[in-house]
Amino acid sequence: MKPVAFHNTVLRDGHQSMAATRMKTSQMLPAAPILDSMGFRMLETWGGATIDTSLRFLGEQPFDRVRELRKAAPKTPQGMLLRGQNIVQYKCFPDDVVELFVKCTADAGIEVFRIFDGLNDPRNLAPAIAAVNKAGKVARGEICYTTSPTHTVEAFLKFAGELKEMGCAEIGIKDMSGVITPRVAAELVGGIRKLTGLPVTLHSHETAGLAAASYVAATDAGATAIETSITPFANGTSQPDTLRMLALLDGNPRQPTFDRKKLAELREYFTKVYKELAAFTAHANEVVDSDTLVYQVPGGMLSNFRVQLKDMGMSERIDEVLAEIPHVRECLGWAPLVTPISQIVGTQAMLNVKFGRWKNFSPAAMDIVLGNYGRTPAPVDKEVLALAEKISGKSPMTTRPADSLKPNVENLRKQLAEKGLPTTDEAVVLYAMFPVEYEKLIKNPGSIVDPAAAKTPAAAPASAAPAPRPAGRHQRLQITVNGKTSEALVEEVH
Amino acid sequence: MKPVAFHNTVLRDGHQSMAATRMKTSQMLPAAPILDSMGFRMLETWGGATIDTSLRFLGEQPFDRVRELRKAAPKTPQGMLLRGQNIVQYKCFPDDVVELFVKCTADAGIEVFRIFDGLNDPRNLAPAIAAVNKAGKVARGEICYTTSPTHTVEAFLKFAGELKEMGCAEIGIKDMSGVITPRVAAELVGGIRKLTGLPVTLHSHETAGLAAASYVAATDAGATAIETSITPFANGTSQPDTLRMLALLDGNPRQPTFDRKKLAELREYFTKVYKELAAFTAHANEVVDSDTLVYQVPGGMLSNFRVQLKDMGMSERIDEVLAEIPHVRECLGWAPLVTPISQIVGTQAMLNVKFGRWKNFSPAAMDIVLGNYGRTPAPVDKEVLALAEKISGKSPMTTRPADSLKPNVENLRKQLAEKGLPTTDEAVVLYAMFPVEYEKLIKNPGSIVDPAAAKTPAAAPASAAPAPRPAGRHQRLQITVNGKTSEALVEEVH
Repeated sequence: MKPVAFHNTVLRDGHQSMAATRMKTSQMLPAAPILDSMGFRMLETWGGATIDTSLRFLGEQPFDRVRELRKAAPKTPQGMLLRGQNIVQYKCFPDDVVELFVKCTADAGIEVFRIFDGLNDPRNLAPAIAAVNKAGKVARGEICYTTSPTHTVEAFLKFAGELKEMGCAEIGIKDMSGVITPRVAAELVGGIRKLTGLPVTLHSHETAGLAAASYVAATDAGATAIETSITPFANGTSQPDTLRMLALLDGNPRQPTFDRKKLAELREYFTKVYKELAAFTAHANEVVDSDTLVYQVPGGMLSNFRVQLKDMGMSERIDEVLAEIPHVRECLGWAPLVTPISQIVGTQAMLNVKFGRWKNFSPAAMDIVLGNYGRTPAPVDKEVLALAEKISGKSPMTTRPADSLKPNVENLRKQLAEKGLPTTDEAVVLYAMFPVEYEKLIKNPGSIVDPAAAKTPAAAPASAAPAPRPAGRHQRLQITVNGKTSEALVEEVH
Repeated sequence: MKPVAFHNTVLRDGHQSMAATRMKTSQMLPAAPILDSMGFRMLETWGGATIDTSLRFLGEQPFDRVRELRKAAPKTPQGMLLRGQNIVQYKCFPDDVVELFVKCTADAGIEVFRIFDGLNDPRNLAPAIAAVNKAGKVARGEICYTTSPTHTVEAFLKFAGELKEMGCAEIGIKDMSGVITPRVAAELVGGIRKLTGLPVTLHSHETAGLAAASYVAATDAGATAIETSITPFANGTSQPDTLRMLALLDGNPRQPTFDRKKLAELREYFTKVYKELAAFTAHANEVVDSDTLVYQVPGGMLSNFRVQLKDMGMSERIDEVLAEIPHVRECLGWAPLVTPISQIVGTQAMLNVKFGRWKNFSPAAMDIVLGNYGRTPAPVDKEVLALAEKISGKSPMTTRPADSLKPNVENLRKQLAEKGLPTTDEAVVLYAMFPVEYEKLIKNPGSIVDPAAAKTPAAAPASAAPAPRPAGRHQRLQITVNGKTSEALVEEVH
C-alpha cells in the first residue's frame, strides 16, 4: 500500500479552530512556499468561516486569498469546505447562486471541494456536487459523523454510496466534534473503500483526545489521507499536528516522508503568527476537553450551554437538561449536534425541563421538525410533528428546502448595479451571502466592519492573559418563545 | 483475550507530573474509596518523588500515607515506583538499606513494586527484586525506554529476559519521556509476552501526544495493563485520562468496563484538588509539547536546557549544542536522557561546543564514563575513557556501584539513637535518604522544611495566573568545571 497522504489544514481549519479564523492572507503567504514544497496532497485554505471573517474582520477580498495562495503555492491543490446549499452561510441559497459560487471558486484556483450538509441530506448536496463536476474540479462528499441510534456504520456506508452516485470523486469523513473512535474510524474507512472504491479521507479534531489515535487506525484501514495542521494551530480543538502524526506512524509501513527540518521551520513561523493573534487564541483550546466524553455532547456546545443555563437561572438543573437532550434529539429525528442544530436542541431541552416537555416549542426546533433544514436522519416523532403543525399552521416540507427558492443571481446583479457596486460574478455571490459586509468593504476598501471584534493582531500584546473568548466564533442571538425572550450564545463550529 | 486492565496513577504520577508531587494525603483520602470500588488492577500511590515531597514540603510521615490509603482503599493493590539501588533518591545505597526499605514498604501495605534503573543495569535492580520477593510482594521490573542505536527492540527483549531471570513477576515498559510510538509499543509488548509469558504493562506520558495511541496499540498487542490517570491530573506530561482511554477502546474487544458516572465524579473531585494546588500546576503541562519530536530530546530537558544556555551566554548556539548531544551520548555509551543523566549530557554538550570536544570534561560526565552510575547500555568511547582515567587518576569501576558500599543500617540506627530520634526501621530508611528533612520533621512534627516552596494550597488562589514554575520539581545546582562555576537547573522527571 502507498504511504498515507497528509492534507494540511493550518491555513483554514487550523486557525478557524484555534484563533477564531483570524489569520490574514499576509500571515499565510510567507509559509505558503514551504507548505507547497513538502508533499502534502492538499492544502485546505478556504471556506468554512474564512469568507465571513475576511469580509467582516480582516478587510480582505475573500477570492483574492485563493489567487494569492495559488501563486505562492502553485504545486499543491488547494481545498475548501463548502456547506452544500448553505454555501458558507447558515441559510439555504437558490441553486443558481450555489452554482455560480462554485464556478467563481474553481476559477480562482480551488481544486478540491469538501461538500457537507449537517443533516447528511443528499438533496442539500446534489447541486454543489454537480457544479463542481461541471467546473472540472474534485467533489469530495463529506459524511458528517455523529453518534445516535440511527447513525450506524451501515447508515453511513449507505450515504457514502449515495455520494458516489451523485458524482463525488472522493469521500471524506468529517468528525467535527472529535468523537470518532479508532474502531469506528477503521470500520468506516474500510467499509467505504470496499463499497465505493473511492479515496477516503478522515478529518477529525483532537478536542476530546481521540483524533490522533483514530488517524492511526484509519491509516491501518487503508485511508488515502488524513488531515493535519501545524503547531500551535494544531491539537486541542484543531487537527493533530503534522510532526506528531509523523511520529505516531514511525515504523508503520504507510508512514509518509516529510522533511522534519521544514516542519520545525513551519512550527517556528506559525508560533510567531499565533502570538500575533493572541487576542483570538484561547489557551484552553489546546488542552484535551473531556466534556464530550463525560456528557456525550460536543465540548464547544457544553461551554455555551452553561452560559445559557446561567442566563436562564437554571445552572443547578444541568443534569436534568443534559438527560433531556437524547429525548429532544430522538423527537427531532436524531439531528446531529452541529451548529446551528446543537443550539436549537440544547435550548429545546432547557425549555422542556423548565416548562414540561414541548409545552414551549421553540420556532427553530419547529423548523427542524417541519423539514425546513432538510430531511432528518430518522423520522421525527409523530406527536411532536402534529404539535408543530398545529402551532405553526404549516405542513411539513416534503421537497428539498432549496426547491422553494427562485433563481436569484440576476436579481442580485441588478441590486448591485443599482447601488453602484461591482456586478462581477464574485460580487454577486459574496453579496448574496454577506450583503452588509460586502457593501461596506467595497465602499471603504481595506476597512473592517467591526473594529472592536477585529482588533488588529499587531495591537494585541502576545502576553495578554487571560485571553478573551474569541470574538466572532460566538454570536449572541435572541430567541423569543411564547413571548419570553431568552438570549442564546451560538458558536460556529464548521 | 481478557479486557485490558487499567492501573490508576492519579495518586502518584498524576500529581507528580502535573502538580510538583504536592497532593496531600488528606486530599487523596476522599477519592480513595471511589477509586477502590471501580476495578482498577492497581493504584499507584507511592514512590518516585512522593517521599521527598512528603518530608520536605507537606510535613507528612511518608509511610503513614500508605497505611491510610490501605485503610481507605483495601480492595485494590497499591503500587510504588522504586529507583532500584537509589531507592527514592538519586544516589546509590547499600544493599541492607535497600532491603530494609522494601521490607518496611511491604509491611506498610504496598503490593506491587515497580523497580527501575536509568541505565537498565540489572546489577542495580537485583537486590531490590530479591527483597520484594522475600517480602512476598510483586516485583515488576521496569524497562526504561529510550531511543538510540543501541536501544533496539532486541536489546530491550534481552533485558526483559534478564528481569524474569532475576525474579520479576511482571514486566513494565517505562516510557518516562513519552516517546514510544504505537508500532514500537506493539512490538515490545508482543515480544516480551512471547519471550517471558509474564504480564506486561505499558506506562507512558502524553507529553508529546503519543501515549494514548500507543496504549491502543499495546492493548491490541496483548498488554495486560495500561496506566491512566484522572483529569485534570491527566494527559499532557501525565498519563492519559481514564475516561479518554475508555473512549479510545470503544468497540475494541479488550475494552474494560468502568462506571462512567464514578469517573465523572472523580474528575469533579480532582478538579477541585487541582485548583487547591494552583501554585504548583503549570498550565503548559497540559498541552502537547512537540519539542521532543522536533529536537529529539525529552520536553522537560529542553526547557531547562534553554535556561542553562542563557546562563552561559550561549542562547544563540542552541542548534550546535543540540547537534552535539548524540555525539556525547555515543561517547557515554548511549546513556538514556533521564534525570540526572540528561542534565549531565546536556551540560557536556554545551562544554564541548564552547571549549572544543572534551576540552572541559565535567566530573559528572566522567562519573558516567568511569561506570560509577552502573554499566552503560553500550561501551563508552575508548579515547574518552582514557581521558577520564587520565584526568581523574581513577580506573573504571567494573563491579556494581553498591559493591563499594558497606552495610549501613545499624550505623544509621546508632546515629538516630544518639540524636534522640526514633530508631524504628522506617526511621532508619527515611533518615538514610533524607537525614536533614527527616530530623526536622521529627523535631517539629507537622512543620514544613521549606515554607516558601511548600506554600500551602489553601493559600494559593485558584485563579493565580501565570502559575509559577512548579517549585521542588526544579533544583538549581552549581557545577564547577576546571575552576569555572556554572549553575544548572535540574528537574525531577521520574
